[in-house]
Amino acid sequence: MSGVCVYKIKIIEKDINPHVDKWEAEGHFPAKEVFKLLGDAGYLGVTKPTEYGGLGLDFSYSVAVAEEMGNINCGGVPMAIGVQTDMATPALAKFGSDKLKREFLAPSISGDKVACLGVSEVGSGSDVASIQTKAVRKGGDYVINGGKMWTTNGTQADWMCLLASTSEGAPHRNKSLICLPMDAKGITIAKKIDKIGMRCSDTAQIFFEDVKVPVDHVIGEEGMGFTYQMIQFQEERMYAAAAAVLPLDKVIAETIEYCRQRQAFGQPILNNQVVHFRLAELATEVECLRALLYRTVGLYIEGNDVTKLASMCKLKTGRLAREVTDACLQYWGGMGFTNEVLISRFFRDFRLLSIGGGADEVMLSIICKYMNTLPAPPKKVQK
Amino acid sequence: MSGVCVYKIKIIEKDINPHVDKWEAEGHFPAKEVFKLLGDAGYLGVTKPTEYGGLGLDFSYSVAVAEEMGNINCGGVPMAIGVQTDMATPALAKFGSDKLKREFLAPSISGDKVACLGVSEVGSGSDVASIQTKAVRKGGDYVINGGKMWTTNGTQADWMCLLASTSEGAPHRNKSLICLPMDAKGITIAKKIDKIGMRCSDTAQIFFEDVKVPVDHVIGEEGMGFTYQMIQFQEERMYAAAAAVLPLDKVIAETIEYCRQRQAFGQPILNNQVVHFRLAELATEVECLRALLYRTVGLYIEGNDVTKLASMCKLKTGRLAREVTDACLQYWGGMGFTNEVLISRFFRDFRLLSIGGGADEVMLSIICKYMNTLPAPPKKVQK
Amino acid sequence: MSGVCVYKIKIIEKDINPHVDKWEAEGHFPAKEVFKLLGDAGYLGVTKPTEYGGLGLDFSYSVAVAEEMGNINCGGVPMAIGVQTDMATPALAKFGSDKLKREFLAPSISGDKVACLGVSEVGSGSDVASIQTKAVRKGGDYVINGGKMWTTNGTQADWMCLLASTSEGAPHRNKSLICLPMDAKGITIAKKIDKIGMRCSDTAQIFFEDVKVPVDHVIGEEGMGFTYQMIQFQEERMYAAAAAVLPLDKVIAETIEYCRQRQAFGQPILNNQVVHFRLAELATEVECLRALLYRTVGLYIEGNDVTKLASMCKLKTGRLAREVTDACLQYWGGMGFTNEVLISRFFRDFRLLSIGGGADEVMLSIICKYMNTLPAPPKKVQK
Amino acid sequence: MSGVCVYKIKIIEKDINPHVDKWEAEGHFPAKEVFKLLGDAGYLGVTKPTEYGGLGLDFSYSVAVAEEMGNINCGGVPMAIGVQTDMATPALAKFGSDKLKREFLAPSISGDKVACLGVSEVGSGSDVASIQTKAVRKGGDYVINGGKMWTTNGTQADWMCLLASTSEGAPHRNKSLICLPMDAKGITIAKKIDKIGMRCSDTAQIFFEDVKVPVDHVIGEEGMGFTYQMIQFQEERMYAAAAAVLPLDKVIAETIEYCRQRQAFGQPILNNQVVHFRLAELATEVECLRALLYRTVGLYIEGNDVTKLASMCKLKTGRLAREVTDACLQYWGGMGFTNEVLISRFFRDFRLLSIGGGADEVMLSIICKYMNTLPAPPKKVQK
Repeated sequence: MSGVCVYKIKIIEKDINPHVDKWEAEGHFPAKEVFKLLGDAGYLGVTKPTEYGGLGLDFSYSVAVAEEMGNINCGGVPMAIGVQTDMATPALAKFGSDKLKREFLAPSISGDKVACLGVSEVGSGSDVASIQTKAVRKGGDYVINGGKMWTTNGTQADWMCLLASTSEGAPHRNKSLICLPMDAKGITIAKKIDKIGMRCSDTAQIFFEDVKVPVDHVIGEEGMGFTYQMIQFQEERMYAAAAAVLPLDKVIAETIEYCRQRQAFGQPILNNQVVHFRLAELATEVECLRALLYRTVGLYIEGNDVTKLASMCKLKTGRLAREVTDACLQYWGGMGFTNEVLISRFFRDFRLLSIGGGADEVMLSIICKYMNTLPAPPKKVQK
Repeated sequence: MSGVCVYKIKIIEKDINPHVDKWEAEGHFPAKEVFKLLGDAGYLGVTKPTEYGGLGLDFSYSVAVAEEMGNINCGGVPMAIGVQTDMATPALAKFGSDKLKREFLAPSISGDKVACLGVSEVGSGSDVASIQTKAVRKGGDYVINGGKMWTTNGTQADWMCLLASTSEGAPHRNKSLICLPMDAKGITIAKKIDKIGMRCSDTAQIFFEDVKVPVDHVIGEEGMGFTYQMIQFQEERMYAAAAAVLPLDKVIAETIEYCRQRQAFGQPILNNQVVHFRLAELATEVECLRALLYRTVGLYIEGNDVTKLASMCKLKTGRLAREVTDACLQYWGGMGFTNEVLISRFFRDFRLLSIGGGADEVMLSIICKYMNTLPAPPKKVQK
Repeated sequence: MSGVCVYKIKIIEKDINPHVDKWEAEGHFPAKEVFKLLGDAGYLGVTKPTEYGGLGLDFSYSVAVAEEMGNINCGGVPMAIGVQTDMATPALAKFGSDKLKREFLAPSISGDKVACLGVSEVGSGSDVASIQTKAVRKGGDYVINGGKMWTTNGTQADWMCLLASTSEGAPHRNKSLICLPMDAKGITIAKKIDKIGMRCSDTAQIFFEDVKVPVDHVIGEEGMGFTYQMIQFQEERMYAAAAAVLPLDKVIAETIEYCRQRQAFGQPILNNQVVHFRLAELATEVECLRALLYRTVGLYIEGNDVTKLASMCKLKTGRLAREVTDACLQYWGGMGFTNEVLISRFFRDFRLLSIGGGADEVMLSIICKYMNTLPAPPKKVQK
Repeated sequence: MSGVCVYKIKIIEKDINPHVDKWEAEGHFPAKEVFKLLGDAGYLGVTKPTEYGGLGLDFSYSVAVAEEMGNINCGGVPMAIGVQTDMATPALAKFGSDKLKREFLAPSISGDKVACLGVSEVGSGSDVASIQTKAVRKGGDYVINGGKMWTTNGTQADWMCLLASTSEGAPHRNKSLICLPMDAKGITIAKKIDKIGMRCSDTAQIFFEDVKVPVDHVIGEEGMGFTYQMIQFQEERMYAAAAAVLPLDKVIAETIEYCRQRQAFGQPILNNQVVHFRLAELATEVECLRALLYRTVGLYIEGNDVTKLASMCKLKTGRLAREVTDACLQYWGGMGFTNEVLISRFFRDFRLLSIGGGADEVMLSIICKYMNTLPAPPKKVQK
C-alpha cells in the first residue's frame, strides 16, 4: 500500500486550492469544470473498466487517489469527488448494462457528467430500508414520486443514482437502483441546504412528481437495489476514511507550525508539554486509522467481505476527525475561532463525518451484526 | 441560591429572541437598543451601587440574571451583556473615582453607554501580563499607543475599560485600567473579525495611535491594573458559567424532544438506549457544573477568595459546553449539520468558551498555582 | 454544609488505620470491635432518633461523618460502616415498630450488633425487583427460602435487613423488609467471596432453608418492602458519594507529594506539565462531585425528593473514582503497581463503586426515568 | 501477516493454562520447566540465528508467536516469555561475540537458561539514561556495584542482560550491556515485589556488591549499551503489543458470552444497546491496534526505522488495554469484582502495560522527538 502511486496531483495546487476560499464564501464550487479537469487526467475512473474510460486498477489505487484528494483545502470538494467516483457509480460499474454504462458511467469517468446519489430522505437519513420514494412501472416506464434529502452535488448533477421502491414487499427486497437524468420532467430542486460546514459543496432537497424514466434505466436486477447499495456503501466508507487521513495529518502539522511560531507566557506554545504530548496522541490515533484503512483495503482487494472492517474505518474516521479538529483548534486560540484559518474550516466540515454516509450509530449496528451481538428482533404477532 | 429571583425576563421573549436569527445573519446586534431596554428594567446593574443606578444586591443575584440570559437563543448577545455587567465594569465599580463612575458606570448601568474590555492583544490572548499597549504620561494626559484584539462590543462601544502599561517595571505592577472614550482621536477600529460562532456579537481589532485621555481616567491606583483585572476576572468566570448552564439544559431538552418526534429504524430515536443514557450522562455533568457554580458563588458572597473554584467553573464550562453540544448535535443527524436549528448555533458559539475569557490551559495554570504544583520559575541569572 | 462538624475522628487514627494493612492481608476486619468503638463515640446513629441512642441530627451531619470516614486508609471499612448506618437501618428507623427498633436498631447504633443488608441475589445484583427469595407466612412465622449474594458484613452480622417476597403479585408490591437474626436455624453462610478489592470487608453468599422468623419482624407494612428499599437507597447513594470524596482528595494529594519527591529525567515528576495539569483536571472534577453532593444533601434535608440528584451523585462517584485512581496510579510508576502504596489499594477498592449499590447503568436508568426519556414498556398481550 | 503460522500452541493448552490459577495464587511460575518445553518446541528462538538453535525467521514470525502467547490465561507468563525472547536477548543475538552467544544465547533459545533484563533501577524506571549501576574495569574483570529494580524473572534467572555505566562521560555514550551470570558472588536478590497483577511472574529487586564478571562478557562494543538497548526496546514494544491483542479479543468475546447468558431486568445483559455498542467500539479500537502492529512489523522487516510507530503501538497498547479491561469488567457486575473470573485478572495484569517497558509518557516523548516537537533543551551554563 505504502508503495502505491502517491504523486502530487497538480490540478489541486493549480486549479482547485487557489479558488477554495471563494467557493466556500459562495456556498458552491463549479463541479463541471473541476470534474472535467480531473476526468481528463484520469482521476475519476481509477478502478473503473477500461472500456468505459477507466484505468481498470484495483481499489488500492482508488484509495491512493482519495488520500491525495485530502490535499484539497476543504472537505466539500473531496466529498463531491467521492460521490462521483465511489458512491454513485460503483453499483453501475459492477451491475449496470452496457447501455447504461455508456450513457452514465463513461461521461462520469471523463468528467462530462456530474453524478449524485439519491438515497437519504427526510426522516430516513441513516435508515435506508425505510425510504418512501416509489418507482411504479407503467408501460415501459417507471413513474417516480417522492423526494430525496441531503443530496450532495444535487443542484449541479446531470444524473442521479436513485434508490426507490419498485414493488411492495420486504423492505430489503423491494428496492432498485435507477439511473435518473436530472433534467427529467417533474424533478424539483426544492432548496439548497444551508450547512455549518462543507459549504462549497451543494446539498439539495429534491422532489419527484410523476417523473418518468424508461425501465431499462434500472441498474442490474430490479429488487436488488438495497443489496447493491449495501455493496456500494463499502467503497464509500473506505473512501471517507481515505479522504480524511491526509487532512488530519495536515491539521496536526499546521497546528505544530502555528504553535512553534506563536508565543505565550514567554515561550512558543509548542513548548508546552500538554500541547506536544496531545499532538503526539492525536498523531498516534491517525496512524491507527491509516493502518486500519490499509489493512481493510488489503483484505478487500483480496476478495474478502470487509463490511465489518470498513464500518470500523468509517466509525473511527468520524470520531477521530472530530477529536483531532476540536483539539487542534484549541491551540490556535482566538485565531482558531475565526474563519481565516484552515483549522476552523475542517472543524466545521468534518463534523459531518460522524453523520453523513451512515451515522456512527449505524456503523455500530453493522459491526454488532457482524459480531453477532444484536438482540433478536421481536417476533411478529400472527394475525 | 435556588430560591433566588428567577422570574422570566420578558424582554428576552419580546425584544430579543424574535430578532436573533436576523442578527446572526447580519453578524451584528444593536447593542444600544437592547442594552437600553435591559438597563431600564434594571438588569445591567444588579450588583452595582444604588447611587449610580444599580440595585445593590449581592453577586448571587447577578448570577441569577446571568442564568436567565441563557434563555436568549444564541451565545453572542449574553456574552455582550456579560461584558457590560461583569467584565468591563466590576473594577470601575469597586475602585473607580466618583467622577469616573458618574461618567462611565452610571450610563453603563442605565444602558445609555455600551462598554467594552480592552485586555487581549495580538499574540497575547491569554497571557495578560505580556500586553504591549502603553499609556505614557505627558502633562495631564496619558498618550496611548498599541492595539487590542478580540474586543467584544468593539465596533459599538462608547468606552473601553483599557488595560495598558503605565510604567516600566515588573509586568504585574506596571499596568493600569483606564476608562477610554471610544470616540477619542487616534482610535481606529481596524476590522470586525469573521468568527465561526457568536456571529451576532461584534468582535473588533482596534489600534491606538497617540490617543490622549486625561490621567484622572485611571481606575483606582496607577500600577494596580493587573491586580484589578485579576479580581475582575473572577466575576467574569462565574458569569461565563452562569450564562452557559441554561443553554446546556435547553440543548439537552430540545434534543430529547427532537429525538422523541424523529423516527428511525421503526421507533423514535430517543428509544435508543445509547441516546437516552448519553443524555442522562450529559445532564449529570450539567448538574455538576450548576452545583459547582452555586457553591462557588455561595463562598464568594461570604467573602472568600474563590479564584481556584471560579477557575474550575470556567474550565468545566468550556469543556462541558463542547461535549454537550457536540454530543447532542449527533442525534439531530443531518438537521444538526444545518444552520436551521439551535443546536448547531450553540455548537459553533460555545466552542469559544474554552478559548475566550482565559483559555482552558490558563485556568489549569491558575488551579495549579492554588494547588501549589507549578514548577518554580527558573532562577534569573545575576548580571 | 461547609461549616458542619468536621473535626477529625480520633478512633480512625488510633484504632483503625494502624491495623488496616493487617486486615487487608487477612481479608477481614473485626467489625464488632470497631463498631463498638464507633458506637460508643456516637458515630453510628447520627441521624437516628434519640430514644434509641441516636443523635437526632439531620442528614447533613451523617454526610459529614461519612466524609470523615474517608480518612480511613481503605475502602472496605467505610463501606462496612455505611452498611450499618445508611444502608441496612434507615428503613427500620423510619418505618419499624418500637419493638423492632429496640431489638435491632438500638444495638446497631450502640455498636453492639452488626447489621447487613440482604437485597442482592445471584443473577439480580442490580435488578432488585427480580429477587427470588420468598418469605411465606405459616402461623405466626415467615418461612424463608432462597439466598443472598454480595452481602457486605455477611460473615459477621448479627442481623440482616432482608428483602423477600411475601406474596405473589406485582414485583413492586409483593416484597417486604424483615429483620432477620443471623443465628436463626437454616441460615448457611456459603462462602466468603474472594474480591479484587475491598479485601478487609467480608462479602458473603448466604442460603436460607426453611428459616423461621416471627411475622412481627416485618418492617412497617407487609408488601411495602420494595418502596422502603428505594427510599433507603437514596441515603445509601449519598453515603457512597460522601465516603469517596475525601479519599479522592487524598489520592490526589499523595500523588502530588510523591511526584514532588520522585525525580525522572532530571526533575521532579510533578514538574511535568501533563502531570500537574492532569491533577488539576481531576481536582476540578472532585470539586464538582463535592458540590453536587452538598447541593443534593441540602435539597434532601429541605424535604425534596432527590432520587435523580442522588443517583447522579452515585453515578459520578463511580466513574470519577475510577478515573482518579487510574490516572494517579500512572504517576507512581512501578510503585503504583505494587501492594505497598495506598494508591493501588484505592485503585482496586474503588473499582467497586461503579458496580455495587446499583451499577452505573441502573443509575442511568433512574435518571432517565426522572427525565422521562425511557421508552414505554411493551404492551402486555391480552390472554 | 494474516497468513503467518498461527497454529495453536499445544503446550499452552496442555502444560500452561491448567496451572495458571495455582501459579497466580503462589505468586510464582516455574520458568525453567515452562521455558524448557517452549524451547524444545522452538518457540524461544524464532528470529534467532540457526547456528545457536534459532529458526532464523523474520520478525513477523516472532510477532505471530507472541500473539499466540496471548492464549495464555494471564499476563504474567507471556511477559516472562517476552523477556526471554524479545527483551533480554535481541542485542546479544545482534551484537554479541560467538563465545557469549554459545554461553548465554543458545541455552536461552533451548530453554535451558532463564534470562532477565537489568535496566530499571530505583528512581529511574523509565529514565534509562540516568541509571547509577557501575561496572568498573579492574584487570580482566568488571567490578559491578549498584542495583536493579522491577526485574522480571529476577528470582529465577540464570543470567542477566545488564545495563551499567562502564565509564564516565555523556550518559548516552558511557553504558554497556553485559552478560552477567546470576550465581556470581555479590549478587543479592533483595526481595520479591508484591504486585497488584502479573502475580505469577516474579519481579525482583537485586543488589550488586563488588560483583566480578570477565570483561569479555560485554555485548558488542563497550560504551554502546545505551544505543543497543534502544534498538532492543523496539522489539520489546512490538512484542508488548502483539502479546496484548489476543487477550483483548478474548476479554471482549468472553464478556459477550457472559452477557448473553446473564439476565437482568428480564433480558440478557447483552441486549442492552449500551453494552453491545460499547463492545463494538472496543472491538474497533482493538482492530486499530492490530492493524497498527501489522503495519509497523511490515515496515520493520523491510528494514525501516520504526521507532516512532513501535512507540505508538506501545502507547496504544497500554491505554487500550486499560480501557477494554475496565469497560468489560463493568458488564460482569459483582462477578467482575471477584478473583474467580479471567476479566478481573486481566484488569489487574494489564494495568502494567502503561507503566512497564517504558511508561506511556516515555512513549509520548519518543513520538514527539520524531515529530520534532520537543523544546530545545536548556543551554548548559559555561563554568
